[in-house]
Amino acid sequence: MKNDPRFQPFDSAKTPRFADIATFLRTPRLPISSEIDIAIAGVPFDMGVNFRSGARHGPAAVREASRIIRQIHPTSGIAPFRLCNVADVGDATVNALDPTASIGLIEAFFHDIHKAGALPIAIGGDHTVPLPILRVIAKDNPVGVVHFDSHADTLDELMGTKINHATTFRRAVEEGLVDPKRVIQIGLRGSRFSENDIQWGADAGFRLITMDEYEKIGRDEVLREIDRVTGTGRTYITFDIDGLDAVYAMGTGVPEVGGYSVRDAQVMIRSLQGKHLVGADICEVAPVFDPTGQTALNAANLLFEMLCVIADSRAKRS
Amino acid sequence: MKNDPRFQPFDSAKTPRFADIATFLRTPRLPISSEIDIAIAGVPFDMGVNFRSGARHGPAAVREASRIIRQIHPTSGIAPFRLCNVADVGDATVNALDPTASIGLIEAFFHDIHKAGALPIAIGGDHTVPLPILRVIAKDNPVGVVHFDSHADTLDELMGTKINHATTFRRAVEEGLVDPKRVIQIGLRGSRFSENDIQWGADAGFRLITMDEYEKIGRDEVLREIDRVTGTGRTYITFDIDGLDAVYAMGTGVPEVGGYSVRDAQVMIRSLQGKHLVGADICEVAPVFDPTGQTALNAANLLFEMLCVIADSRAKRS
Amino acid sequence: MKNDPRFQPFDSAKTPRFADIATFLRTPRLPISSEIDIAIAGVPFDMGVNFRSGARHGPAAVREASRIIRQIHPTSGIAPFRLCNVADVGDATVNALDPTASIGLIEAFFHDIHKAGALPIAIGGDHTVPLPILRVIAKDNPVGVVHFDSHADTLDELMGTKINHATTFRRAVEEGLVDPKRVIQIGLRGSRFSENDIQWGADAGFRLITMDEYEKIGRDEVLREIDRVTGTGRTYITFDIDGLDAVYAMGTGVPEVGGYSVRDAQVMIRSLQGKHLVGADICEVAPVFDPTGQTALNAANLLFEMLCVIADSRAKRS
Amino acid sequence: MKNDPRFQPFDSAKTPRFADIATFLRTPRLPISSEIDIAIAGVPFDMGVNFRSGARHGPAAVREASRIIRQIHPTSGIAPFRLCNVADVGDATVNALDPTASIGLIEAFFHDIHKAGALPIAIGGDHTVPLPILRVIAKDNPVGVVHFDSHADTLDELMGTKINHATTFRRAVEEGLVDPKRVIQIGLRGSRFSENDIQWGADAGFRLITMDEYEKIGRDEVLREIDRVTGTGRTYITFDIDGLDAVYAMGTGVPEVGGYSVRDAQVMIRSLQGKHLVGADICEVAPVFDPTGQTALNAANLLFEMLCVIADSRAKRS
Amino acid sequence: MKNDPRFQPFDSAKTPRFADIATFLRTPRLPISSEIDIAIAGVPFDMGVNFRSGARHGPAAVREASRIIRQIHPTSGIAPFRLCNVADVGDATVNALDPTASIGLIEAFFHDIHKAGALPIAIGGDHTVPLPILRVIAKDNPVGVVHFDSHADTLDELMGTKINHATTFRRAVEEGLVDPKRVIQIGLRGSRFSENDIQWGADAGFRLITMDEYEKIGRDEVLREIDRVTGTGRTYITFDIDGLDAVYAMGTGVPEVGGYSVRDAQVMIRSLQGKHLVGADICEVAPVFDPTGQTALNAANLLFEMLCVIADSRAKRS
Amino acid sequence: MKNDPRFQPFDSAKTPRFADIATFLRTPRLPISSEIDIAIAGVPFDMGVNFRSGARHGPAAVREASRIIRQIHPTSGIAPFRLCNVADVGDATVNALDPTASIGLIEAFFHDIHKAGALPIAIGGDHTVPLPILRVIAKDNPVGVVHFDSHADTLDELMGTKINHATTFRRAVEEGLVDPKRVIQIGLRGSRFSENDIQWGADAGFRLITMDEYEKIGRDEVLREIDRVTGTGRTYITFDIDGLDAVYAMGTGVPEVGGYSVRDAQVMIRSLQGKHLVGADICEVAPVFDPTGQTALNAANLLFEMLCVIADSRAKRS
Repeated sequence: MKNDPRFQPFDSAKTPRFADIATFLRTPRLPISSEIDIAIAGVPFDMGVNFRSGARHGPAAVREASRIIRQIHPTSGIAPFRLCNVADVGDATVNALDPTASIGLIEAFFHDIHKAGALPIAIGGDHTVPLPILRVIAKDNPVGVVHFDSHADTLDELMGTKINHATTFRRAVEEGLVDPKRVIQIGLRGSRFSENDIQWGADAGFRLITMDEYEKIGRDEVLREIDRVTGTGRTYITFDIDGLDAVYAMGTGVPEVGGYSVRDAQVMIRSLQGKHLVGADICEVAPVFDPTGQTALNAANLLFEMLCVIADSRAKRS
Repeated sequence: MKNDPRFQPFDSAKTPRFADIATFLRTPRLPISSEIDIAIAGVPFDMGVNFRSGARHGPAAVREASRIIRQIHPTSGIAPFRLCNVADVGDATVNALDPTASIGLIEAFFHDIHKAGALPIAIGGDHTVPLPILRVIAKDNPVGVVHFDSHADTLDELMGTKINHATTFRRAVEEGLVDPKRVIQIGLRGSRFSENDIQWGADAGFRLITMDEYEKIGRDEVLREIDRVTGTGRTYITFDIDGLDAVYAMGTGVPEVGGYSVRDAQVMIRSLQGKHLVGADICEVAPVFDPTGQTALNAANLLFEMLCVIADSRAKRS
Repeated sequence: MKNDPRFQPFDSAKTPRFADIATFLRTPRLPISSEIDIAIAGVPFDMGVNFRSGARHGPAAVREASRIIRQIHPTSGIAPFRLCNVADVGDATVNALDPTASIGLIEAFFHDIHKAGALPIAIGGDHTVPLPILRVIAKDNPVGVVHFDSHADTLDELMGTKINHATTFRRAVEEGLVDPKRVIQIGLRGSRFSENDIQWGADAGFRLITMDEYEKIGRDEVLREIDRVTGTGRTYITFDIDGLDAVYAMGTGVPEVGGYSVRDAQVMIRSLQGKHLVGADICEVAPVFDPTGQTALNAANLLFEMLCVIADSRAKRS
Repeated sequence: MKNDPRFQPFDSAKTPRFADIATFLRTPRLPISSEIDIAIAGVPFDMGVNFRSGARHGPAAVREASRIIRQIHPTSGIAPFRLCNVADVGDATVNALDPTASIGLIEAFFHDIHKAGALPIAIGGDHTVPLPILRVIAKDNPVGVVHFDSHADTLDELMGTKINHATTFRRAVEEGLVDPKRVIQIGLRGSRFSENDIQWGADAGFRLITMDEYEKIGRDEVLREIDRVTGTGRTYITFDIDGLDAVYAMGTGVPEVGGYSVRDAQVMIRSLQGKHLVGADICEVAPVFDPTGQTALNAANLLFEMLCVIADSRAKRS
Repeated sequence: MKNDPRFQPFDSAKTPRFADIATFLRTPRLPISSEIDIAIAGVPFDMGVNFRSGARHGPAAVREASRIIRQIHPTSGIAPFRLCNVADVGDATVNALDPTASIGLIEAFFHDIHKAGALPIAIGGDHTVPLPILRVIAKDNPVGVVHFDSHADTLDELMGTKINHATTFRRAVEEGLVDPKRVIQIGLRGSRFSENDIQWGADAGFRLITMDEYEKIGRDEVLREIDRVTGTGRTYITFDIDGLDAVYAMGTGVPEVGGYSVRDAQVMIRSLQGKHLVGADICEVAPVFDPTGQTALNAANLLFEMLCVIADSRAKRS
Repeated sequence: MKNDPRFQPFDSAKTPRFADIATFLRTPRLPISSEIDIAIAGVPFDMGVNFRSGARHGPAAVREASRIIRQIHPTSGIAPFRLCNVADVGDATVNALDPTASIGLIEAFFHDIHKAGALPIAIGGDHTVPLPILRVIAKDNPVGVVHFDSHADTLDELMGTKINHATTFRRAVEEGLVDPKRVIQIGLRGSRFSENDIQWGADAGFRLITMDEYEKIGRDEVLREIDRVTGTGRTYITFDIDGLDAVYAMGTGVPEVGGYSVRDAQVMIRSLQGKHLVGADICEVAPVFDPTGQTALNAANLLFEMLCVIADSRAKRS
């Protein structure tokens, strides 16, 4: 166990959870460096959406909400801050007026993280965000993906634009960043623009689990499918918060009713303990649409779940 | 397939979902005419309530929330706007100062829809609304009713008033508008004014499913009961939004905890595919009590569910 | 049946639910007296928390929200106001500037209730509140406790303080107020400060049901465990509203995701019918964090559930 | 000075302002009796509006907001609770389903207050409320009226209805309840339905001060006009909260921009010290439209201002 | 007077203000045509901002809020719907994913309005919106501009981008669309990025009135300056809602404290009666940041003010 | 000019204002050190209040809101970050469960700042906060105080407690920390607990300006009084946010209507340019009570105003 004192979160016994600046999970805000094992980064980019923007404020909201999280996992007992050096490395640079330029800037930022040897956990931002991250961590080495979402994000284009939150995983396949046979999409549902909104991934080899199937086979069987599809290879986790039922995620661009619960999501992420995990993101938290703060709270909790399994994976491979 | 271009919703590729006026499901706002197969109408009447008013703003809120809905059903594949001419015909006239006069005005408005040959889907307004609609579409030809609600709405009177949101289905039986043997009420629960708050319907022949029974027999058995009770006859759907658990429906006059989920409601409505459906309503959305907008979003989704099964029914019978 | 007219709630047929002052369940606001069987009291104390305060406004919010509750239980048929004289006895005196003094004042207030022969139902306030109540009703006569919560509240101290919302049940055991063998804690979950956050109670003999176990054994088995653990002895109910899933309880100091539903809580409380119940509390409702009002609504419903089983218990023992 | 201990508000040194039930200005909730000098009553009636209802919740919201008010006026030094016996006498009975019946019930309620010898201060409810009050206190003895409002409320009818919140002061003149020469309306503004929306009162002899004139002549001159118009006769104060600029009163049925401030209103009410005051009301607080709670807070402050000048008037005439 | 029945707003006596679809000022939603004198159009574009987006929802919010406005001006007596044919022509097409393309689409849309002979009133969208409008109506014929704003919007670029909400009026001068000698900017204030944030316009010949000067010279003198600067030439009105004090405009991207009131703005717009007005816009209403709805209400009122002076101008020149 | 690059705020051209962690005015979060000229610190203490707590969240909210502030003052041209090294030094340690201990911890924290040679600007926290700060910076060297507030905070005790938000300036005089002849309190108003709520300070030599006097003499005369009273000696600024009219400050423990505007406050603070300023605080921002975020925005703006005059003072004295 590392347990490096420079990388410990605020101690709530000295600095109550309501006190001092808000960082991801109360970790120290530090520049990218080679001492960091896991870098949590904000990506305040939301110009890839065609309905409601606002995910640019996602990182700030998740930082605030994560004040509530403590340090040890109640089920697995994982204590991530003892296993790894974890830091909040701030936000990727974006250009608020130029979507295309922003994608490049984001990629450059995660390149720095990757080069430093840290595993990234990104807080978006809209669901365009995984593409520049995957370009960094999966270039010439495609990863498997556990994709929580109500939408497949595999359209070819939107309003003439090729890179946006509805095309991410099609681009990722085309660019050789993900191994389609090792992709599982969980929670697909919601009305569709056309008959084949979600078909492309299925044709490419993705395992698609709609909410209809989720309910039919049950969560335990879904856990088995996640395990089967991802196998032992390098695996990335991507969580569009609208994968959750809208009752848990009104603070997002396109809330979709009839999804799974936060509890379900927790159990699914916990099931990834033991996998070879190389990074993760949580996207589409647009806090201003949720005056209760619940969406950001859920994201903060899921961030902690991800951190625990990634820290465990990292510690075992260091 | 009709697919009449004059009756297509806004095309989101040209008019993004946040753009232009809000109509029900982005359908065109058109006057009542004989070209319309399904008329979606607001009924901003809320003077039939004895606790919190505010459902007069329900139609406006559901129009706004329905911007998010697309055009094809993810499970059944029904594409309602290709099967039928669907329009937003505006709101029924009401007199904001005279409950009694309003009932007459509403009835006259739905009479026009009915005479034009369109099937009505009404967005209330409080749950007094189904009565004037049933008076139009079920006069001398009683219908079966699938009634989603936490309350039975079969009292004899409230504060000396015979027509209000707590007496609707007793009046409808008395007036010969519904066939009590073909009525099923789903979701009854909540504390009671007296021992026999819900008894009248049971005595009249309604099939009552309390939340206790719902949980005991399970949703699949409830689907079978819906099918059995409604049979092959003409059937009307009425959805008091407080049938949903309060967690999904704070924006209503009398939210009741411990109900079913939106997912459950979706599955129940989907099960009506194949029935002979003659109209529907969603009532008691009082948006100002739900700052998250979730209640209206749920109503918009349920509206789309209803539209799909009704369009399917209508197309097969045209 | 008593059915004393002086102790009936407002009659909604004469005073609509939106009218007149807000009291708990619309019961009369009366001074403590020997004619009262069940005294509902607010305890606006929230200086025992280490994160978000605001539960001082819990009593006011629950009074307002309880306007919606009617008088007869829909499942059990219990009509508490016919069985017992129930009153809102106002709020325990607290000193808003002195936590220690407040605990003494609260104890004195409940001593008066106890001396008058009434059973207390307290609406907190934070979860320090049960301690002064138990000091009154369980002195030299330890009670069993059904404890709904996401946290065990059995730490030894917090920031050097021995009496606060995280230590209540450890103190209660140490002071001989509860019989640890007859304590069941339901819903434990959430990240932890240290490995043994919840261990002390288990070691003392408490039955701990984490959400993992809850889900694994199922609610019916939990009901059996509640029954087994509490047995036939005097039993107290304590409900930290954060026992509910955060989706039902954002209006609290430390909302925790992944818990049970209000429906689950209703069924669990209903299962206590037949037990020897000596008092209850609902704590940690901090309404200002929940702009939908849902948390207070849930608390009001759970208050009615508790009142019904306690009235039934009291009536059978009078 | 009376200073009757039975009529003192909660003592904040013992019961902090956040504690116990909410009553108007923390006065005791007492039945109407001949010992009361000034009776503060809620009138939760809002069926007289043609846009947004919700003022039925006005009394509850003002009770809550008035927790903040203390006991002595900072400018005049008036200590109303030492001068008069003041009580919260609850809410007038209304029939939530029958506007016409409600007007009769309200009249009967204020008749009881009047008969008991108390001066009424009413918290509406919509601005129909003054009519039944004036019918009681001004029958055969017309009063002068200081009327704060953005609308004149002197239409002949609305949607065929004669008694509603837009016709109150025309009816009051017609019924001989007010002396039109002693009526002053302050704050008129806002777009109009027709050219002569506000003309009737002017023709009848009212002194109308539009916001244009208010700004032109200045507040000091307005004070002189109030004094001149009302003179020494019996005078009633009626305050439609939308008289305030919308920035102070979003929580109302028809907020109108460009009005006066709360400070202005305070100074205007204070200027009535020395007048022969016989009653007052504050209407159209619809709290659910103002999530900040500011509208109700303003109403609570204005209530205290009114109470001070009325208590002073009453004490000097007892 | 035209008073064309096809162009009248909803009649509130028949369709209460809460009823039916929301259009600007309840005018009919009609396609662009040569019968329209004044076309009110939404422009849901907000990709020109560098802080908080959300103005894409401005048109929808202003439509909803404008339900409250009636038909005749209370001060001037102007009845715009009798003078001109006014219609809601829907929203300009935008590409939610491509800022540059959107500017072209907006320009094309206003070109259609202009070609049809109608004067445009635009509801943004962010303050990039005036540029494409001015390109249409002021090409080769520069206009004077009355510019209400807290920011000068005359930077040369922002993050490398030339067309955005901070550069609009510099571009407009450079493109020969505005006559800098006939531009007046009112309300400048707020902290600055650099010393010369607002200097460019002054150098170009604009008349700048900071809030310091506004307060010093007084509103009456400001009215004289507006009159003097604009003279008799063709004049355009542009209102960035953040020109208002933040207390009136929290629902905007960059609220700035210490500005003028809505009343002030009303009086300033009213002073334009008699000018040769050729169009107007209200921008930067981002409703989701203002849960009270006040910002949109203010915009709706200012829209009515603009409509009145423009209708008067148009009628006199037709 | 220093213009030390290590102490510059985030550059908005690279890190948009919505991006990265929130610190006070986007300054770097640094530990206390001798290189800092002005230390901005949070003090999340709110156990000194007797009504609504919540100011513990004030620092976090002001940090978030201050993202909007830029770097140069629009009126004075002061560029504080070029004149001084300014840093966010985090929050003073507090004990959330022990008011008395917290006061000591806060004092120790500001002692460190003082010892390092930095001037403190504190963001509370409730208005008890100035006492421990003054104990550090004014020990044996009493300061003058410009005190913005609606309450005098000179009671002797509250509920038996000597140190709380209502006694601060009486204690400060008694402890010899302030020179009563050089204290000016601006904005006093609001109802009172007793006749002499504000008298003690007047007797001690304070200059009290009630809102009545403020309005009577006018703001320019108030500026002269501020200047006269404070003179050339060391001066401290303390701003209880409830000094502002409640319309600008609903997010506070005890909002009081009828106060001055943010513009007024800005001008008053600006008038302190040239004074010998030794520190400042802004207290009583309780953000959860203001869903619009306006209160925190106002505080952020006032913080910038204070920083500018203090930086100017410091730079001239370094």
